[in-house]
Amino acid sequence: MRTIDWDEDLDCIVMVDQTKLPAEYVPYHATTISDLVESIQRLRVRGAPALGAAGAYGVALAARRVEADDLADFREQFAAEADRVATARPTAVNLERGVEEMLGVASRADTIEEIRTQTLVAAKDLADRDVERNKRIGANGASLLEQGQTVMTHCNAGALATVDWGTALGVIYSADEAGKTVDVIANETRPLNQGSRITTVELMERDVDVTLIPDNASGRCMQEGRVDAVIVGADRVVLSGGPNDEGAVFNKIGTYKQAVLANRHDIPFIVAAPRSTIDEHRTVEEIEIEERDPDELREIYGSPNAPADVPVYNPAFDPTPMHLVDHLVTEHGVFEPPFDERTVLQA
Amino acid sequence: MRTIDWDEDLDCIVMVDQTKLPAEYVPYHATTISDLVESIQRLRVRGAPALGAAGAYGVALAARRVEADDLADFREQFAAEADRVATARPTAVNLERGVEEMLGVASRADTIEEIRTQTLVAAKDLADRDVERNKRIGANGASLLEQGQTVMTHCNAGALATVDWGTALGVIYSADEAGKTVDVIANETRPLNQGSRITTVELMERDVDVTLIPDNASGRCMQEGRVDAVIVGADRVVLSGGPNDEGAVFNKIGTYKQAVLANRHDIPFIVAAPRSTIDEHRTVEEIEIEERDPDELREIYGSPNAPADVPVYNPAFDPTPMHLVDHLVTEHGVFEPPFDERTVLQA
Repeated sequence: MRTIDWDEDLDCIVMVDQTKLPAEYVPYHATTISDLVESIQRLRVRGAPALGAAGAYGVALAARRVEADDLADFREQFAAEADRVATARPTAVNLERGVEEMLGVASRADTIEEIRTQTLVAAKDLADRDVERNKRIGANGASLLEQGQTVMTHCNAGALATVDWGTALGVIYSADEAGKTVDVIANETRPLNQGSRITTVELMERDVDVTLIPDNASGRCMQEGRVDAVIVGADRVVLSGGPNDEGAVFNKIGTYKQAVLANRHDIPFIVAAPRSTIDEHRTVEEIEIEERDPDELREIYGSPNAPADVPVYNPAFDPTPMHLVDHLVTEHGVFEPPFDERTVLQA
Repeated sequence: MRTIDWDEDLDCIVMVDQTKLPAEYVPYHATTISDLVESIQRLRVRGAPALGAAGAYGVALAARRVEADDLADFREQFAAEADRVATARPTAVNLERGVEEMLGVASRADTIEEIRTQTLVAAKDLADRDVERNKRIGANGASLLEQGQTVMTHCNAGALATVDWGTALGVIYSADEAGKTVDVIANETRPLNQGSRITTVELMERDVDVTLIPDNASGRCMQEGRVDAVIVGADRVVLSGGPNDEGAVFNKIGTYKQAVLANRHDIPFIVAAPRSTIDEHRTVEEIEIEERDPDELREIYGSPNAPADVPVYNPAFDPTPMHLVDHLVTEHGVFEPPFDERTVLQA
């Protein structure tokens, strides 16, 4: 099943309940806007592209749940429900964008029935476009892999962060589809363990051979020759600033260490991300790195892991200088260094 | 308090109960041989040098607890009790050596009272020698540090792995004693979290400023210029074999990644360990790296962290090639590359 989808039989939203991972891989049905808002807030659904679809499907769900005697009343209640979805989490711009795109569709419809029909059609289209874009990223990236290789990945840039297919993991699925079976080594990805909790689950679900390692063992795996390529996603790519004005890939903390080790061992380091991830307006120095809650280190799953008052430094991302990136894969192609802004953005 | 010591008032062994860390830093009194055996098996006391002292104090405790009418009866019961201590854990050679050294002392005594007195004196002496050796390592290593520096460490090569003072952390304590205050960044050290559970506790106990980070953030800390030196201990050092026949430091998994990153950022990488850690009889290829239980990754503190059936690769150690080691510190001095076996061993 897709990370988030429309259930035709039950006429509601259905999603993989990511709060249940890794113990259970089960669907959750959001039949009301309250269900959906709670699901977004509790991270049943997470990942920017998946949240865009949640916003779009949310508007379609609102159109079907609002009851009103006339169009003006309907539009008023409908707008209020859509706003609840858009503001369920404050920082995910994709969520708001998904809602806005559907409100535009609704504003061009003439009847309640047209709003109901057309928002659902458009939400499905938005979700389909996410998958298509990821499949283009995947197909482009798959050209870099060969049958029987083992690929290391960090964090989860997979189907469960998007509507389906994913970006970094999409490359692996596309390679598989092209007849090239690839094994995966998944880094645990402390402190939030997206590698052990999410990446392993989705790879096993798709019958991809995966081996989980502690982040500390990735260098040892490279020493032993177990790794043919490293593939990661990206939260933001900038093509200027930093040492030598070369730009950087901002991605989950620890990505930089993987890139340095891959470089030392002559292992290709591949970044797979949609073109929308490339920020053409900022430089490395202008990107603020989110510092997260110390309790992510002090406790694990509610058990004490350190003294309750120990000082903690817990940055969520790190910048990997572009010269450590061997291939940058977007839906428009595969790019190699030097990453000229004009070439990468206008492909 | 020392990691393990003799309680004069209660006439028994007292140790820091490491099974209670990080929640509580509390003593445990082993008043019988059964208490001690259970403590070793449950890892209330761990770390090779600390286990050596546990063996020695165990023999002294046995001498005080055994009751017999004559010397022959005494010696028989005493030997059986000592054997229970020596075999409490099968792999720690230090434990057995500590017991054997005390049995030698006992064999040279002429009365029950002499055995009781002399084994306790000798056990205290063995413990004192461990601390003295660590202080020599510390003083030698402290010459490499300067006031106000920040040192990163991995795992726990501290007081709690020895009778007191530690090796890598001993360097920090010795610097402090010499009037050079040093701050510490402690890597969490997955999968067994010795950094977050043990290193933080002992540093805070000694008023050393410590900041806990996820292993993934060590590269980011170096990028930001937060790290002046990296200091680690060693499980085994070999000076031949491996690429370029240069030898390697075998230490906790992830040490190799720290060394590669330190090298990239021109940060001194220091290994502090007793000379007995240097294995002059083997080469890199002859050292087997222990692979540990997959459940160390699949669960954390009893909570699921990954699918219960996910394949796991969990090596406990990795080899760091000697050219990445800037300084090797033993109780006999500070050595720099190339690490000539004759120089290092005969200093």
